[in-house]
Amino acid sequence: MKPVRLWAPHRRRVELAAAGRRHPMRPAEYGWWQAETELDHGEDYAFWVDDEGPYPDPRSLWQPDGVHGFSRRLDHRRFIWPDVGWQPRPLSSAVIYELHVGTFTRTGTFAAAVDHLDHLVDLGITHVELMPVAEFSGRRGWGYDGTALYAPHHAYGGPEGLKELVAACHRRGLAVLLDVVYNHLGPAGNYLECFGPYFTDRYRTPWGKAVNLDGPHSDEVRRFFVDNACMWLRDYHFDGLRIDAVHAMVDLSARHFLEQLGDAVRALEAELGRHLVLVIESDLNDPRLIRSPQAGGYGMDAQWHEDFHHALHAVLTGEQCGYYRDFGHLADLAKSLRRGLVYDGRYSAYRQRRHGRPADDLKGHQLVAFLQNHDQVGNRAGGERSSHLLCPARLKIGATLVLTAPFVPLLFQGEEWAATTPFLFFTDHRDPQLAAAVSQGRRDEFAAFGWPPELIADPQDPTTFERSRLDWQELRQPLHTDLLDWHRQLIRLRRALPSLNDGRLEAVAIRYDEQQRWLVMTRGAATVACNLAEQRQPVPLSVAGPSRILMSSDPQSHLESARLSLDGPGVAVLLAVDRHLAR
Amino acid sequence: MKPVRLWAPHRRRVELAAAGRRHPMRPAEYGWWQAETELDHGEDYAFWVDDEGPYPDPRSLWQPDGVHGFSRRLDHRRFIWPDVGWQPRPLSSAVIYELHVGTFTRTGTFAAAVDHLDHLVDLGITHVELMPVAEFSGRRGWGYDGTALYAPHHAYGGPEGLKELVAACHRRGLAVLLDVVYNHLGPAGNYLECFGPYFTDRYRTPWGKAVNLDGPHSDEVRRFFVDNACMWLRDYHFDGLRIDAVHAMVDLSARHFLEQLGDAVRALEAELGRHLVLVIESDLNDPRLIRSPQAGGYGMDAQWHEDFHHALHAVLTGEQCGYYRDFGHLADLAKSLRRGLVYDGRYSAYRQRRHGRPADDLKGHQLVAFLQNHDQVGNRAGGERSSHLLCPARLKIGATLVLTAPFVPLLFQGEEWAATTPFLFFTDHRDPQLAAAVSQGRRDEFAAFGWPPELIADPQDPTTFERSRLDWQELRQPLHTDLLDWHRQLIRLRRALPSLNDGRLEAVAIRYDEQQRWLVMTRGAATVACNLAEQRQPVPLSVAGPSRILMSSDPQSHLESARLSLDGPGVAVLLAVDRHLAR
Repeated sequence: MKPVRLWAPHRRRVELAAAGRRHPMRPAEYGWWQAETELDHGEDYAFWVDDEGPYPDPRSLWQPDGVHGFSRRLDHRRFIWPDVGWQPRPLSSAVIYELHVGTFTRTGTFAAAVDHLDHLVDLGITHVELMPVAEFSGRRGWGYDGTALYAPHHAYGGPEGLKELVAACHRRGLAVLLDVVYNHLGPAGNYLECFGPYFTDRYRTPWGKAVNLDGPHSDEVRRFFVDNACMWLRDYHFDGLRIDAVHAMVDLSARHFLEQLGDAVRALEAELGRHLVLVIESDLNDPRLIRSPQAGGYGMDAQWHEDFHHALHAVLTGEQCGYYRDFGHLADLAKSLRRGLVYDGRYSAYRQRRHGRPADDLKGHQLVAFLQNHDQVGNRAGGERSSHLLCPARLKIGATLVLTAPFVPLLFQGEEWAATTPFLFFTDHRDPQLAAAVSQGRRDEFAAFGWPPELIADPQDPTTFERSRLDWQELRQPLHTDLLDWHRQLIRLRRALPSLNDGRLEAVAIRYDEQQRWLVMTRGAATVACNLAEQRQPVPLSVAGPSRILMSSDPQSHLESARLSLDGPGVAVLLAVDRHLAR
Repeated sequence: MKPVRLWAPHRRRVELAAAGRRHPMRPAEYGWWQAETELDHGEDYAFWVDDEGPYPDPRSLWQPDGVHGFSRRLDHRRFIWPDVGWQPRPLSSAVIYELHVGTFTRTGTFAAAVDHLDHLVDLGITHVELMPVAEFSGRRGWGYDGTALYAPHHAYGGPEGLKELVAACHRRGLAVLLDVVYNHLGPAGNYLECFGPYFTDRYRTPWGKAVNLDGPHSDEVRRFFVDNACMWLRDYHFDGLRIDAVHAMVDLSARHFLEQLGDAVRALEAELGRHLVLVIESDLNDPRLIRSPQAGGYGMDAQWHEDFHHALHAVLTGEQCGYYRDFGHLADLAKSLRRGLVYDGRYSAYRQRRHGRPADDLKGHQLVAFLQNHDQVGNRAGGERSSHLLCPARLKIGATLVLTAPFVPLLFQGEEWAATTPFLFFTDHRDPQLAAAVSQGRRDEFAAFGWPPELIADPQDPTTFERSRLDWQELRQPLHTDLLDWHRQLIRLRRALPSLNDGRLEAVAIRYDEQQRWLVMTRGAATVACNLAEQRQPVPLSVAGPSRILMSSDPQSHLESARLSLDGPGVAVLLAVDRHLAR
């Protein structure tokens, strides 16, 4: 195994604590220190810096006792990967499934998740996306407060469990993406600042100090995150990463961190001979981030398509609070489907400024679309899923548009059967002051919107976590199996019809009537007709030639002189009959 | 004249103070207010907002009584421009002269500057660049602390005086650039925050709060600066702007402020039918800023070439403090001449991180090169010019390289005759607390480098300003006329030889010997041979065919078998004799 190393550029004495002793480390180049003592796989260790400590290793691969505990040495070579020759499907034909390891199953571990992979395969999922798994404070959490960024969470099953899960996915033909958070660290267990200038106060983020990406010593800080990304892809065989909130990573240097990350991952891809993807969450509506480096872009493969989500959610629910006030018209939904970005330089009332810029060169495959995700559900006071807010027919409209849109569709765990369980915000901080602050913070956040405190689930209460756990028994009930079938059929249709997967925004034909509340989208042979009104109404189709109804939320729906009668609200998928359903 | 308008989005009552009364203004769209009362040219006015005031107009065109006084209405149409059909030379064949209105002449006014324009024409200058003229606190100042950004400083002669100066320049074929500061406002007289969210604390700059370019209400803040730029170009007939420290303008929105500014100025150029240029000062070494929008760039025309300056200064002076520690090798100077950026992604010891990125597509005309400028001189404890630090021979090496380099050369006022006057940092704050803080700040800044406080000129002391004033009598002394001739000859040569003005970095041939301390640059027919050693030595030339010495700092220098003997230090310009000197 390689010797233990530590970057601590401003420290004058660094010691390795192991086997009950402190061993001096010797300074190496660029602020690094190296241990003289050899440590084997499984040995515990920590660091003392200028007589402060013991602190866990910032690059610890294994924190068996949590964020505050000793680090444990791990030899990645001990795991024998069974997925030789594995290649993931391209993102352009992907259907992503976002899951939270802790609540996906009854025991909430990597191992338990394996038991439900066949369900995902049967549904037609191609890519599993794990919410962050890096070690965070306590046993329960969403994972965005991780602090030991190289260590898979001990409560989920640690490094070995994660590798087994990825291998099990690959065995079933499922690619696996990992959500990583590089814009901040959690409030508990962040020892990075004991070692070096990982953070800066020159920029402010919603979570405090920004990561130091362009100040003195930022080369090593950037390398810390780039190496982290490469570790997941190399040593855990992940097929790609979803990078959280990149707009909170302020980097004014000439080469943006994301470009550096993109270059490193492209190099790794060549080295490993395996396709890798980088998907970002960005609040900027800036196409530069997902353009190729050749076009002056940062080279990310795709970004989450928030505008589509907001447009769809606002149309389906009628909600107008917060950022939904910028949406609500069918015109927005139509624009998102045809042009990608809705806010492409136009004025946003929510942001009180112009937002975004045009992106006429984008492919649909550069945008990941969803009716809901962990944030959209979990950041509501009651953790309500779309199925809590919408009747089944409207839910089907949403599912149909997500799964027939020109984007890469993403489902959030349980969405496929309209799980009744909420997905609440939960934490497990052990520091009483921090725990109280988090609970109070959640109450205050929603009190501002008029929610009575007693209705706000306490993030620290273990039952908040328990309530958020999927109940797989629901899958036996007819309403749930009906929705599951609906999703399964749509995914099969998407796979079967090349035009649904071509990502060509310019080939999306849309007609809608803002007053009558209907919208019709045609993509090649397939037409999706949506009645968003409350009453039954004929939806005019402009399909060339005869077509037949392939799926409908309304069993009574029928075609008459290029009009589809649909009970409101409802949705039907029609197929031009002179075309073949390629399989 | 247009009605008086004011942007004050969060105010509930806005009044116009004029003719001894307060007149209510009525709210208009997007947070604007409009006066019902008509005001004519020459009338004084101010604003009251929610009963606070009176405050000057943020867009005041005229502050006859300084930053705190009433604003005065100005009708730009009253000035009859005599420069009909005026077109400036392109930047690619420009020689820029930076001047500070207050110290350029004995009286320090726009009008007085006119008296010395013929000197500039005779020297061969094509573009005059005025240090900022926007109204700043007091009567003496560099101008970077301006707060009434639309009003030419009253002590310089106000709007009328400035127009006369620009017209006088154009009459002589001189283009005029203006230095504008959009990254911060000065500490005294900044009333912007009384009116709206012009600033943000999400980002920190060396001068405090950053300008709000991407937060709520930033559309109007951006417009404030864009409109300002357009005003100078349209209403004062400036031929371009030099934009101060754009790295301190933090804008994470999808369309960077500079892109918006570039688009606006390109549109104005089309409207006016007059060539306009935008030059930036940038600390980022990011070629994106000066690439075309088509190539994903921000569309600025050129940027100040700090790397060349630092490389040249460090080689000539041997200084190694501050940012000069990143330079000092002939290799750096050679790289800056051949590649543009020296720091193109390589590690900077001064910044303690990698800096910049490669820019192989740049033209030399996109970089403005200088041996000194107001900052490099004025930010020294003693305000020392290069001529205070270097012997005349080394000074000639510097001048020769600047004026034969593939970049756009810039001289700082008095440089052409090696003025003996320093250029010190001076201010004229009237607020005693601020005045004391500025004086103390200056002492502390240099005390950190070991300078005794008594040697640091007090910025507030009027003699500091007086000492910085050019002494035109010096031009009668032989040493000064010799240097003036040297500069004049070089500029003539640059004009005469197309290869010196082609901006082709790839056509620059350089040889140097780091140990022997000589450097030879060949650009077409011209060869510049520099001996940077202290002793006389032969400098090997690789000029094809016979050549002759056109200029030399060493009257004894002579050619012998492709070696030029040069007393050290010294410089000579040679010309291949089989080519013609095109005139």
